Amino acid sequence: MHYPQHMLKLIAFLKKLPGVGNKTAERFAFTMLSWQHEQLKDMGTFISDVKEHLRYCEECGALIGIKEQCPLCTNANRDNAAICIVATAKDIFAIEDTREYKGLYHVLGGVLSPLDGNHVEHLTIPKLQERIEKLGVKEIILALDSTLEGDTTALYIKKIFKDKNINISRLAFGIPMGSALDFVDEGTLTRALAGRREF
Amino acid sequence: MHYPQHMLKLIAFLKKLPGVGNKTAERFAFTMLSWQHEQLKDMGTFISDVKEHLRYCEECGALIGIKEQCPLCTNANRDNAAICIVATAKDIFAIEDTREYKGLYHVLGGVLSPLDGNHVEHLTIPKLQERIEKLGVKEIILALDSTLEGDTTALYIKKIFKDKNINISRLAFGIPMGSALDFVDEGTLTRALAGRREF
Repeated sequence: MHYPQHMLKLIAFLKKLPGVGNKTAERFAFTMLSWQHEQLKDMGTFISDVKEHLRYCEECGALIGIKEQCPLCTNANRDNAAICIVATAKDIFAIEDTREYKGLYHVLGGVLSPLDGNHVEHLTIPKLQERIEKLGVKEIILALDSTLEGDTTALYIKKIFKDKNINISRLAFGIPMGSALDFVDEGTLTRALAGRREF
Repeated sequence: MHYPQHMLKLIAFLKKLPGVGNKTAERFAFTMLSWQHEQLKDMGTFISDVKEHLRYCEECGALIGIKEQCPLCTNANRDNAAICIVATAKDIFAIEDTREYKGLYHVLGGVLSPLDGNHVEHLTIPKLQERIEKLGVKEIILALDSTLEGDTTALYIKKIFKDKNINISRLAFGIPMGSALDFVDEGTLTRALAGRREF
């Protein structure tokens, strides 16, 4: 006896979520079966209508409501002379949560990773150049992953803007808050040493 | 800046899945955003329509298509004199996958767990008694979890049918296939010793 057809299709869909294998998808599907009909209808509608309720800002790439104006680009209180470059729209929310940054953002749409097929033409570099020109940006903050791909992308962007009289910085690398020193890996410690600050 | 309203609701729904916390739900939601509109529509429809396509057999409790007859209860090739008692409909598929059992099933709908509010009246015991009477069952196989709750439920069912001239057995406990002996826990090893078989 196999799963009924509809169950198989539901499991197949759930398996497309990141980190979800067969067993987890089955567990998700059986949990859903135990939900009320109304609850399933609501969840189904939410998923169906995602693209009708959410969009990305054409300027900075932030995730916003479909009828909303971008609360970052259109906010007069934000500093137009600073731009923080992130790989994905999700990263904006992480930085906003710190409440420490008041400038604008630019979503690259990924990082350079030739092996995964992510080349320069897949990133929103022309739009970035256009915005930096238009806004008269004086400071670029590179908020990219601390990976080989993040490093490559950061270097690439630095090369483009190095002659433009713009202050370019990258997020500090070091020991994460709350970490014990002997649990921090070699690479992190090397970068923390290189980036040490007067105390 | 916070997540747009629709995103918050989607994340809230995804968090209802077992083992999914805030971070995972956010990751799922952002992955969904990267899908095609068509794909989201399809997934949404599948989730909305779950109850219109799937149901549980009124006899044994197996998960079946809404218009399907139960392939277990209505299969003349299956042995009506044996009934395998499982906690949930999911367990049936696990046992069917072994292709070693040809009798009928009965889904209890859970195990006895007074602390979680699962009492005798929440299980399908009256239906089980009725079926065992009607089918003239000669063998009961208890396929319940190897937990305190599974043990309690097994004992409870044994007590009900002990005077009925029915052969009652429970799945063997022991070392899982492929396990190294020194990685097996004490409780499992105790049960494996107690259940040792002539070789």
